[in-house]
Amino acid sequence: MEIEVFDNPNPNRPYTITHINPEFTSVCPKTGLPDFGTMTIRYIPDQTCIELKSLKYYYLDFRQKGIFYEAVTNKILDDLVAACQPHEMTVIAEWKARGGISSVIEAQYKRGE
Amino acid sequence: MEIEVFDNPNPNRPYTITHINPEFTSVCPKTGLPDFGTMTIRYIPDQTCIELKSLKYYYLDFRQKGIFYEAVTNKILDDLVAACQPHEMTVIAEWKARGGISSVIEAQYKRGE
Amino acid sequence: MEIEVFDNPNPNRPYTITHINPEFTSVCPKTGLPDFGTMTIRYIPDQTCIELKSLKYYYLDFRQKGIFYEAVTNKILDDLVAACQPHEMTVIAEWKARGGISSVIEAQYKRGE
Amino acid sequence: MEIEVFDNPNPNRPYTITHINPEFTSVCPKTGLPDFGTMTIRYIPDQTCIELKSLKYYYLDFRQKGIFYEAVTNKILDDLVAACQPHEMTVIAEWKARGGISSVIEAQYKRGE
Amino acid sequence: MEIEVFDNPNPNRPYTITHINPEFTSVCPKTGLPDFGTMTIRYIPDQTCIELKSLKYYYLDFRQKGIFYEAVTNKILDDLVAACQPHEMTVIAEWKARGGISSVIEAQYKRGE
Amino acid sequence: MEIEVFDNPNPNRPYTITHINPEFTSVCPKTGLPDFGTMTIRYIPDQTCIELKSLKYYYLDFRQKGIFYEAVTNKILDDLVAACQPHEMTVIAEWKARGGISSVIEAQYKRGE
Amino acid sequence: MEIEVFDNPNPNRPYTITHINPEFTSVCPKTGLPDFGTMTIRYIPDQTCIELKSLKYYYLDFRQKGIFYEAVTNKILDDLVAACQPHEMTVIAEWKARGGISSVIEAQYKRGE
Amino acid sequence: MEIEVFDNPNPNRPYTITHINPEFTSVCPKTGLPDFGTMTIRYIPDQTCIELKSLKYYYLDFRQKGIFYEAVTNKILDDLVAACQPHEMTVIAEWKARGGISSVIEAQYKRGE
Amino acid sequence: MEIEVFDNPNPNRPYTITHINPEFTSVCPKTGLPDFGTMTIRYIPDQTCIELKSLKYYYLDFRQKGIFYEAVTNKILDDLVAACQPHEMTVIAEWKARGGISSVIEAQYKRGE
Amino acid sequence: MEIEVFDNPNPNRPYTITHINPEFTSVCPKTGLPDFGTMTIRYIPDQTCIELKSLKYYYLDFRQKGIFYEAVTNKILDDLVAACQPHEMTVIAEWKARGGISSVIEAQYKRGE
Repeated sequence: MEIEVFDNPNPNRPYTITHINPEFTSVCPKTGLPDFGTMTIRYIPDQTCIELKSLKYYYLDFRQKGIFYEAVTNKILDDLVAACQPHEMTVIAEWKARGGISSVIEAQYKRGE
Repeated sequence: MEIEVFDNPNPNRPYTITHINPEFTSVCPKTGLPDFGTMTIRYIPDQTCIELKSLKYYYLDFRQKGIFYEAVTNKILDDLVAACQPHEMTVIAEWKARGGISSVIEAQYKRGE
Repeated sequence: MEIEVFDNPNPNRPYTITHINPEFTSVCPKTGLPDFGTMTIRYIPDQTCIELKSLKYYYLDFRQKGIFYEAVTNKILDDLVAACQPHEMTVIAEWKARGGISSVIEAQYKRGE
Repeated sequence: MEIEVFDNPNPNRPYTITHINPEFTSVCPKTGLPDFGTMTIRYIPDQTCIELKSLKYYYLDFRQKGIFYEAVTNKILDDLVAACQPHEMTVIAEWKARGGISSVIEAQYKRGE
Repeated sequence: MEIEVFDNPNPNRPYTITHINPEFTSVCPKTGLPDFGTMTIRYIPDQTCIELKSLKYYYLDFRQKGIFYEAVTNKILDDLVAACQPHEMTVIAEWKARGGISSVIEAQYKRGE
Repeated sequence: MEIEVFDNPNPNRPYTITHINPEFTSVCPKTGLPDFGTMTIRYIPDQTCIELKSLKYYYLDFRQKGIFYEAVTNKILDDLVAACQPHEMTVIAEWKARGGISSVIEAQYKRGE
Repeated sequence: MEIEVFDNPNPNRPYTITHINPEFTSVCPKTGLPDFGTMTIRYIPDQTCIELKSLKYYYLDFRQKGIFYEAVTNKILDDLVAACQPHEMTVIAEWKARGGISSVIEAQYKRGE
Repeated sequence: MEIEVFDNPNPNRPYTITHINPEFTSVCPKTGLPDFGTMTIRYIPDQTCIELKSLKYYYLDFRQKGIFYEAVTNKILDDLVAACQPHEMTVIAEWKARGGISSVIEAQYKRGE
Repeated sequence: MEIEVFDNPNPNRPYTITHINPEFTSVCPKTGLPDFGTMTIRYIPDQTCIELKSLKYYYLDFRQKGIFYEAVTNKILDDLVAACQPHEMTVIAEWKARGGISSVIEAQYKRGE
Repeated sequence: MEIEVFDNPNPNRPYTITHINPEFTSVCPKTGLPDFGTMTIRYIPDQTCIELKSLKYYYLDFRQKGIFYEAVTNKILDDLVAACQPHEMTVIAEWKARGGISSVIEAQYKRGE
């Protein structure tokens, strides 16, 4: 699913956008069992903003995908940065316990770094 | 609806005014469905202050308006800055979940920046 | 009602006094309806301190007075500064929701500024 | 009631002592009615420490004494500093509501200031 | 049990991984009685990441092992650093009360220190 | 009761150990009545660590001992520093109310200060 | 908007269905201002169940409708009973404060009563 | 996926078993979008008990299945009753909000009713 | 490990005893992985009471035992009833999540039923 | 201090009156030290009601009075019953901890019992 963007209504003003999805789910590539977590993205847009409905459908693509915690977090950051070219963006993935262990992965992009 | 202002009772003293509206509602331009959120504005007035009843009616104008989260946040900031010409102002829009995803948009104006 | 003061028992030592009134009420000048809020004052006294009982009666004078949020906050700061001439003073007015919107006004005085 | 002190068991090491009394009571000099509050003292002892039982009896002396909030806070600070000559000491008096208004008074002593 | 690693999906970007295990248990070498605690590891990966299922089995090896709090914390830090060669790593072990005393041990590795 | 120590499993790495005992009890030397409190020690070990069971028995020695709050806090710090020669150590004693007054004593040791 | 129903998957077993909408909004017929509240319906279906998406659109019809609290509660109960002919149904409308007063209206239908 | 059962270790004693799954997910047959909820089953076993791992895999079968809230609740009750023939069983499905509306479905089986 | 008992000091008076163990652990017979939970027993003693230290060691026997949730709960109830012959006893086992599913098993014995 | 009463405005209707004073204080007759507590009275008036300001001054009489917990509770009940002759009255005295022990005394009067 492609991430749609729309023109930033105020590209001259740096401001912050946060989207929190407590219903993210993907599949563990090792066991084939589902993983559940909260996926949070926070960014400062430049020329475009991420369209929320397409973000929802983009997240749905992971529902049957076997992928490690670390890979999914970095992939979402890469895909969203590629889609909207923001000034900066952070992705935080908080995973519910698997085998008694819960995990948090946090990755950040800053233009020019 | 026009935003009314009244003379700042003490323009020589910089002080802070905050208005919190947990009952803001507009319409998603993509789906036609209503969005609900809490709209907070915080500003340091210069010569005029925002009249609270006209602010309430100004907010009511969004009740049937199709507009993106990012646009409504920036538009409110632009309209209120134009109406009362403050030293500085912040608008924070906290949206309830749509498609399982909740969002927060925060924009800020500082005179001279 | 006049605000009474009494001699600061220790004018050589800068120290802090806070008075919190969660039962403040005045009248909206636009609608004639009552407003309710918490009025907090915090100050460093110089030669005199504010007498608490006269402060209570001073607050009662606002019960039937039609006055905007911003004006009442600044007027209390002006009146109390005039009465006790403190080193510095802050007034914070936290208002309960009117028309679904709650408000906070905060103003500060520092001698010499 | 005199405040007793005892030799600081370790005068070479600066360390912090805090005593919290949530059952402090004195009398309002204006109305003759009782005031209730929490009296907290925090200090770094030098050669002597305050004996806790004598502190309790010292506090009891205020039970029938008509004295303003500001005066009692400063008097306790003065008396305790005189008794134990600390490196530094803070007194915080948090008063329950009177006439709907609650108050906090905080005063501090530092040797050499 | 050997700790497995897999290739870091994004070795060029420093990001943070946290794994929290509230069900860690080992055995007190002095009394033979079980110890229970929460074991948290946080690290910035370099070329490899720790595979979560092998981490779970690695933790299981301590279930019957007699080992002091301090030793188990440092051993886990040493083993995990050896396995994945991270930029930096912290291990925090929070132990439930034994003989009425609860304990926390925290150790940290930084490459090049 | 002597405090036992054991070899620090990783003396080259500075790390932090915390032991919290919410069931400490000693006797007031003035009234003969029991005092109750939470005794927390936090230290960075050098060559040796404090053995937890001997710490429990060491604490038991205070059960019948008449000793002031300030003295017991400093004595525990002195005894534990003597026993394990740490890089640094903090002792925090939080006492339940006596005569309506609760107290906190905090003392710290740093090698070389 | 018509309320759609679908065949009850198990009409022989009495069971309970609850739908909670914390984002209900209608308009006060007296002031023209919006009302906000939580609308809860609970029912035991007979031959048909209420389809959730059509319920959402049915609620949207009230967004611009001027109607009293009591009327809207009873109308929803009447409309939903007519649509799905349940064994019994309860509607609870909890309204946010207007003029400082919040309200709850609860109405119930039982077949044969 | 078939639900496995094992012999009730104590069929002569009526006792209660509860299994709570806060990570249940299925698909809305109307929109094709995922639903999320907590599925709770509580039962008094007769000759057999439900094996937990097979229950987990049974739940996984709904991950891609389009099915209404009411149908899934009744189907789970029917399937589990058929599998283990309990004295009685209750299924409670608590669904996260969709279109702003959250739902609870509760169905019960009692042998002989 | 045998459960020791001691003479009930007051067998003529029915009274209630509760022992709560939040650190119970056994092994899943299906996966070989550990289970963790809180084991609560509540009983009215007749001629004998359960000795607490032997109960702790009795629980330790389950640390390496492969046994289902339902079996361990009933076995503990059977063993403890056999050991102390109480008027009545309840065992409640609350298990932490496995595969995302948490469980509670509750069994009860009443003499003469 | 005498307790004043006023005519019950509706003696034909039995209704309940409760007065809660969280700032009650008297003196321990054994140690001479102050006691603090919350004094609650609840009664069904007959021909007269207790006047609130006189109740406040009545309570003040105990401020220097040496009297046991049990005696003060019963004396207040006797005095208030004598003053207003209610249908029934309950007095509940909840005392703050002394020597680590907190106490509650509750006494009740019913006419004709």
